[in-house]
Amino acid sequence: MKRKIINDPVYGFITINHPLIFQIIAHPFYQRLRRISQMALAQLVYPGATHTRLHHSMGAYHLMCNAISELRGKGVVITDLEETAVKAAILLHDVGHGPFSHALENVIIREHHEDLSLRIMQQMNQEFGGALDLTIRIFTDKYDKPFLHQLISGQLDVDRMDYLTRDSFYSGVSEGVIGYDRIIKMLCVHNNQLVVEEKGIYSVEKFLVARRQMYWQVYLHKTVLSAEMMLVKIMERVKEIYSATDEKLRTGSALDFFLSSADQAQPFVLDKFCSLDDHDVMHAVKVWSEHPDTVLSLLCKNLLNRALYKTKFASVPFDKELVKEKQDAAIQRYGLSREEAGYFCFTGEASNTTYQRADENIIILFKDGSTKDITSIDNALISQNLSLPVKKFYICSLG
Amino acid sequence: MKRKIINDPVYGFITINHPLIFQIIAHPFYQRLRRISQMALAQLVYPGATHTRLHHSMGAYHLMCNAISELRGKGVVITDLEETAVKAAILLHDVGHGPFSHALENVIIREHHEDLSLRIMQQMNQEFGGALDLTIRIFTDKYDKPFLHQLISGQLDVDRMDYLTRDSFYSGVSEGVIGYDRIIKMLCVHNNQLVVEEKGIYSVEKFLVARRQMYWQVYLHKTVLSAEMMLVKIMERVKEIYSATDEKLRTGSALDFFLSSADQAQPFVLDKFCSLDDHDVMHAVKVWSEHPDTVLSLLCKNLLNRALYKTKFASVPFDKELVKEKQDAAIQRYGLSREEAGYFCFTGEASNTTYQRADENIIILFKDGSTKDITSIDNALISQNLSLPVKKFYICSLG
Amino acid sequence: MKRKIINDPVYGFITINHPLIFQIIAHPFYQRLRRISQMALAQLVYPGATHTRLHHSMGAYHLMCNAISELRGKGVVITDLEETAVKAAILLHDVGHGPFSHALENVIIREHHEDLSLRIMQQMNQEFGGALDLTIRIFTDKYDKPFLHQLISGQLDVDRMDYLTRDSFYSGVSEGVIGYDRIIKMLCVHNNQLVVEEKGIYSVEKFLVARRQMYWQVYLHKTVLSAEMMLVKIMERVKEIYSATDEKLRTGSALDFFLSSADQAQPFVLDKFCSLDDHDVMHAVKVWSEHPDTVLSLLCKNLLNRALYKTKFASVPFDKELVKEKQDAAIQRYGLSREEAGYFCFTGEASNTTYQRADENIIILFKDGSTKDITSIDNALISQNLSLPVKKFYICSLG
Amino acid sequence: MKRKIINDPVYGFITINHPLIFQIIAHPFYQRLRRISQMALAQLVYPGATHTRLHHSMGAYHLMCNAISELRGKGVVITDLEETAVKAAILLHDVGHGPFSHALENVIIREHHEDLSLRIMQQMNQEFGGALDLTIRIFTDKYDKPFLHQLISGQLDVDRMDYLTRDSFYSGVSEGVIGYDRIIKMLCVHNNQLVVEEKGIYSVEKFLVARRQMYWQVYLHKTVLSAEMMLVKIMERVKEIYSATDEKLRTGSALDFFLSSADQAQPFVLDKFCSLDDHDVMHAVKVWSEHPDTVLSLLCKNLLNRALYKTKFASVPFDKELVKEKQDAAIQRYGLSREEAGYFCFTGEASNTTYQRADENIIILFKDGSTKDITSIDNALISQNLSLPVKKFYICSLG
Repeated sequence: MKRKIINDPVYGFITINHPLIFQIIAHPFYQRLRRISQMALAQLVYPGATHTRLHHSMGAYHLMCNAISELRGKGVVITDLEETAVKAAILLHDVGHGPFSHALENVIIREHHEDLSLRIMQQMNQEFGGALDLTIRIFTDKYDKPFLHQLISGQLDVDRMDYLTRDSFYSGVSEGVIGYDRIIKMLCVHNNQLVVEEKGIYSVEKFLVARRQMYWQVYLHKTVLSAEMMLVKIMERVKEIYSATDEKLRTGSALDFFLSSADQAQPFVLDKFCSLDDHDVMHAVKVWSEHPDTVLSLLCKNLLNRALYKTKFASVPFDKELVKEKQDAAIQRYGLSREEAGYFCFTGEASNTTYQRADENIIILFKDGSTKDITSIDNALISQNLSLPVKKFYICSLG
Repeated sequence: MKRKIINDPVYGFITINHPLIFQIIAHPFYQRLRRISQMALAQLVYPGATHTRLHHSMGAYHLMCNAISELRGKGVVITDLEETAVKAAILLHDVGHGPFSHALENVIIREHHEDLSLRIMQQMNQEFGGALDLTIRIFTDKYDKPFLHQLISGQLDVDRMDYLTRDSFYSGVSEGVIGYDRIIKMLCVHNNQLVVEEKGIYSVEKFLVARRQMYWQVYLHKTVLSAEMMLVKIMERVKEIYSATDEKLRTGSALDFFLSSADQAQPFVLDKFCSLDDHDVMHAVKVWSEHPDTVLSLLCKNLLNRALYKTKFASVPFDKELVKEKQDAAIQRYGLSREEAGYFCFTGEASNTTYQRADENIIILFKDGSTKDITSIDNALISQNLSLPVKKFYICSLG
Repeated sequence: MKRKIINDPVYGFITINHPLIFQIIAHPFYQRLRRISQMALAQLVYPGATHTRLHHSMGAYHLMCNAISELRGKGVVITDLEETAVKAAILLHDVGHGPFSHALENVIIREHHEDLSLRIMQQMNQEFGGALDLTIRIFTDKYDKPFLHQLISGQLDVDRMDYLTRDSFYSGVSEGVIGYDRIIKMLCVHNNQLVVEEKGIYSVEKFLVARRQMYWQVYLHKTVLSAEMMLVKIMERVKEIYSATDEKLRTGSALDFFLSSADQAQPFVLDKFCSLDDHDVMHAVKVWSEHPDTVLSLLCKNLLNRALYKTKFASVPFDKELVKEKQDAAIQRYGLSREEAGYFCFTGEASNTTYQRADENIIILFKDGSTKDITSIDNALISQNLSLPVKKFYICSLG
Repeated sequence: MKRKIINDPVYGFITINHPLIFQIIAHPFYQRLRRISQMALAQLVYPGATHTRLHHSMGAYHLMCNAISELRGKGVVITDLEETAVKAAILLHDVGHGPFSHALENVIIREHHEDLSLRIMQQMNQEFGGALDLTIRIFTDKYDKPFLHQLISGQLDVDRMDYLTRDSFYSGVSEGVIGYDRIIKMLCVHNNQLVVEEKGIYSVEKFLVARRQMYWQVYLHKTVLSAEMMLVKIMERVKEIYSATDEKLRTGSALDFFLSSADQAQPFVLDKFCSLDDHDVMHAVKVWSEHPDTVLSLLCKNLLNRALYKTKFASVPFDKELVKEKQDAAIQRYGLSREEAGYFCFTGEASNTTYQRADENIIILFKDGSTKDITSIDNALISQNLSLPVKKFYICSLG
C-alpha cells in the first residue's frame, strides 16, 4: 500500500495512505491551492502568515483522521467508505476559494466559494468516475449521518479547528491557541449528531474565545482591513475604467476573462476560475501600478509598497463631514473628481459574533445522557449576550 | 520615540525603534522581499515552508539586537552608531536576492546576490543622504571592528542562525533546531574577532550538524532539487527559444527585459531588478504553460501541477547509457530532438560541506584566554574529515 | 561583573547579574523553595506538573526584568535601586509558602503565606544589613510608586503571568496559555498606576479566561481536590490523635514541632518553618501509613498509592442523607465511629471568580489619555457577571 | 471499554485503554515511580528538570503505542497479546530504579536496576496470575521476535527516545531535541530485527548527536556531577560511621534497613526496596545535617543549600599534589583526619560513547533490501571514531 508522510510544523506529520486521497491531492485543481494564501494580505501585518489553503486543507484532513479514529474508539460506526469520503470532503472543502477571496468574491467572482467548491467537486467526480459521490452527499448534508457533515462544517468542525490553530501558529498570535486535540478527544455522537462531552466544556469555551480574539486581533485588524480594502478598491477601479481595448489593463491571466465578462449573467467557465491564483492578482497589481489612471496606479503602488490606508475603528458611525474633508484633501492633492475621491476616503462596518445560534449549535452531552446548547449551561462563559454580533465602524483614508 | 512590535512565531516579538530602521523597512526595495519566498520551491515538499526573505531578514535583525546586547553586557564596546549600522546591514544583507535565486542566478540574473545587495545599499545610501555609509563599510568588511562584519557574514553569523531556525520551524523539520539563544549568549569578542566561549562548544557542534542535516534533508532533498531543476530548465528553454517578437513569451514584467537583454554585457538597470519578484516568475510559468513549444509548455505545466522529475541520488556518477535510454524514451514519446531530450533527462552533482575551513572559522575561546579552531579541539564531533565536502550525484528524468 | 544564565524551558534563558540577586538566591531560605512543588498534589492528575516554587519565582523574576525594560523604553522612570528592589521582591514574594500550602495552611501553619514571606524578608534584611529595605517597602505597598507593587501583586502581575504560563506548560493544559510577552509589551504607567494600553484588551481578556479555565480544569480539578482533601484530612487526623509520647507519630522533622505546639498561641520560630519542605510531609505520610490508627494509616496509604476519594461536583449542595449513607458504609466496613466516618465522606464548596473587582482592578488606557476598568468597556468579553464568583459544591467519599 | 487520557506537555495526550495497563499503573510499585525524579539532582542546575520516572515510563509507553501502530501499518505482524505485553514491558522497564539511582546503586543498593525491574515484574506477575508472562519473556529477550525486545532496550529504543526528548524538554536544553516521531515512522522490521529505513539516516544521526550532547551538557555537567558526588559521599560517610545504636542516624524509612544490613550477603526484601523513594533520601539528608559528625553534617547542609563541590574537568588526570594541597586545607580548616579530608577533595573520571558497537547496533535498511551498520555508511557523520569512549578527568573540592 502506498503511504506518504508530510512534515507539518503544526501537527508533526500528516499521513496519506488511500488511493483516492492521493488522486485528489495530485489533481491540478487541488495543487492550485498551493498558490492561494490562507490569510490573504494579513502577512502585511503578520509577516509569518504566509501559509496556503493547501496547507490548511491538509491540516484539516489530519484532524479529521484523528476525529474519526477517536469516534470509532468510542464505538461510533464509521465505515471505510464513509471514512474516505469524509476525508475527501474536508480536503476539498475550500477548493472553490479564489485568490484573496474576501477581497475579490463580490467584485470579480460572483459566486460564493462554497458553491464553487461543490461545482469543482462535481467536475472532479466526473473525472474520477463517481468516486466522489458519497463525498458530495456528505458535503451537501444529504447523507443520513449528519455528524459526518458537522465534522466538516459546523460551529466546531475540523475546518475551524485547523484554521484557528494554523493561523495562530503562523501569525505568532498566541491568543488564538486552542486545545484542538483535547476537543477532538471530547467529541462524541449522540442521536447521529456531533456533541461534546461535558468535561470538554472549558476547551470549547476556549475555542470560542480564541476565535473571537483572532477576529478582532488578526482577521479584522485595522491594518489587515486596510490592505484588503485597498485590493477591493483596486478591483472596483479596474472594473470601473475597464475597456477591452485598453492594452495597459491586460494582465495575461484569467483575470482578463473575468473582467471582460463581468457583466454577463452566464455561469463562467470553471476551468478559467481554476487557473486563477495569487500570482495572477499580484502580477496584475504590478502591471496596473504603471497604468495612466492616477487612482488605479496610486492604489496599486501603495499596496505593493505597503503604504496602506490609515484606518480607525469606532463604536459609532463616523461623521460624514470628516469623510468629506478628507476627500477634499485628496481632490486637491491629486486633482480628482468627488467620485474618485471615494477611493481615498470611505467608511464601513466590520462585525463578528462569538457564538452564532443560527449556525450549527454546539451541544454538550452530560453523563446522564441529557444534552444542552453550550449557552444554556450554568456559569458558562459563553452566555446569551455573546450570541449578539459585535459591530465596529471604520474609516479608511489615504494621506 | 516611535516604536513598533511585530509578531514573529519564531521569536515572539521583534522590536523596531530607530528612525533609520523604519526608513529601510518602508523602502520599496525592502518591501519587495515580502514577495520573495525564502525557500523557493521547497514548499512543494514542505508545504509549510512559505516564509519570505523579508521575514528572515527581520528575524536575523532580531538576533542581531540580542547579540549586540549580550556583547555589550560582556563589556564589548559598540557605539550607538555602530549598533544601528550593523542592524541596517543585517536587514539589507539579502536585499539583492532575486526570485528563486538559486534557480535563476546563473540563467537570468548574472550577478551574485551579495554584489546586488551592495549595489542596492549604495543606491539607498544616496537616497538617504549617506546614512548607510557605516553600514556599507561593515557589510564590505572595511571597518576596523571585524567582529561586526562576522556577525553578519561568517560561519556562525546571525544570518545562518536565523535561516536554520526559521527554515526548520516553517518546514517542520525538527532536525534543524539549533540553540540560537544559547549560542548568542556564548559569543564574545577577542582581539576584535568574534569567538565562542568554551562552554558553547556543544551548541556550536549542534549548529553545524543541524546545518548539515538541513542541507541533505531539506535544501538538497531530491524532490526540492527536482522542482528547482525544473525551473532552471524552464528558464534555459525560454532563453534558447527567445525571440523579441514572440508575443507568447511576453510576461508583462521585468522578466521580459532580462530575457531580451540577456546577452548584453552592460550592467542592468537596478530598478528593473528591484521590481522582480516570485509573482512575476510564477505568472510567467503560467503564461508559458500555454506556449506552442512542447518542451516549454510541458515543463511549465508539470511544475504548476507538481508533476516533477523523478530524481535519484548515488555516490558515483550515473551511467551515460542510462541517461541516453531515458532520453530516447522522451524523444519517442514527445517527438523531440536529442538536444531537446536533454530537458527530460540529465545528471548533475550536489555537494555540501559541514565545516568550511576556507570560510570564516569558528574560534573557541578558553578560560585561560587561549583560542582554537573548533576542529582542533580534543574529542570534538566536528573533526577534520567534516571539513571535506560531501558530494552526491543525481539523475533527473521525466516519464 | 558576575553573570549567570539559567536554562528555562518556558522562557529560554533567565539572566542573573546583580550581587543582591545572587545573595538572595544563594540563601538557604530561598533554596528551600526547590523542595516545594508549585502545584502541590496536582501531579497526581497532571504527571508533568512537578515544577517547584523556586522555578516559578525565577520565572516571575524574568518577566519582571522584561516588564521593567519595557516600561523604561516607554519613558517610565525606574531607578537602578528600584529595579533591584522590585526584582528582589518578586523573587521573595512566595518565600513564605510552606509545603502543600493550600492543604496545610489552616491545619498546621496558622499564618498566611504572604505574612510569612514578609517575616522572612525582614529576617533576611537583617542578615543583609538593610539591603532589602526598599524591597520590603515595595512589597508592603508603602512606596510612592504604586505601580512597582502592582507589578508584584495585582490582578495582572508578573506572579500570575508566570504561574499561568508555567503551570500550563508543565501540566500540558493548553487552555492556560496566555500571551504574557504581549501583555508585558502593552503595560504602561499612568498617574503612577499600572495600566494596559487599549490594544492589549484582547490579551487581557485571554489572560482572564485562561485563569478561569486553569482554576476549573486544573487547580480545582475534582481529582486534584480529592488528593488535597486527603492530605488535609490526614493532617486533621494527626492533630486529633496527637500525643507527644506517641513515638509512632514522630517524623524526625520540624513537623513534630508544629504538631506538638499547635495549640500554643505564641508565634512560632521562623527557622523551624524555614526547614519544612515537601520531603518532610511526604516522609511523614509514609511513616504514618504504618501507624496503628486505622483512619490515619488508611488515608496515608491511599494517598501514597493514589487511591483517592471519589469526588463529584454539583451546582447545589449534596443531600445530607447521601453523606450519611456513605459514612454508614465506612462505619460498617472499617468499624469506625460516626466522627471517624467523617474522614471517609464529607462535602464542601469550591469557588472562583474570573475578575475580582475588589482586587486591584485592571485599567485600560485609551489613546486619548482616558482610562476605564476593563469590565466597563463596550463589547468586552469580561462583563459584570464575570465579577461574580462561580461556586461549586462537592462531595468526597472513599469506597 | 474503560479509556483514559492523560495530559502530557511533551506529546499532548497519552491514551490508556487496556485493563492490564490500568492494573499495572494502579499498582503501588508503579505509583512509587511518581516519587522518584528522572534526573535526580540535575534540577540543582536545570531547575525545570523535576519530572519523574513515572512520567518518563508513560512517555515511553506512548512512543511504543506509536511504534506498534507504524510497524503494523507496514505489514509487520504484532498480535494483540504481543502488543499488550510489550507495552507492559516498557511501562515497567525502569520500575527497579531506586531513588537517585546513579548515586546510590553501588553504595546502598547492590543490585543493578534492570535486575530489580525483573524481580519486581516477577512478583507482580505472581499477583496478576501470570498476566505478565509474555512481558517478562520479551523483557529478557527470550521471545522469538527480537524486534519487540529491541523496541524496549536497544540503541534506538523508545526508552532512549523518550528520555532524550523529555529531559531536553524539561531542562530547556534544546541541544537534546530529536525527531522522535520521524524516527518512529522510519522504523521497520527485517529478518525479525528492528531496522531503520534509509531516509531516516539523518534523524538517527541527529539522535546520536543529541544523546552525546545531553551527556556532556546535562547528565555529566560539572555541577550536576558535583551534586551527585556529594550524595555519594554522604552515603559513604553514613555507612562508614554507621552504628545500629546511633539514634541520630535513624531516618524512619527503609534506608535504616539497607544501612544496617548492608554487609549481609542475603538478597534483600523486595518490599523494603519498593518503599524507598526520593523523599526518604532527602529527609535523611535533612536529619543527618544535624548529626554531630562534622563530615556528614557539613556535606548534608551543603547539599541542601546548594553549596556544592567546585568541579573541574581536564583531558589528563589531575596532579596528586593538587589533591593533597586541597585536602590539607580542609584538614586545617575543619580539623579532619587525612582520610576524612578525602570527602572534601577527590578525583575521578567521567566517560561517554556516542555510538556503542558492543551494544545493540543501529542497522539501516536500503531500498534494495540490503542492510548496513550506521557507522559503515558513506559520508556518515557517525564514523568509526565516534565508537570510542570520550573520557574526562575531574576533580571535586570543597572550599
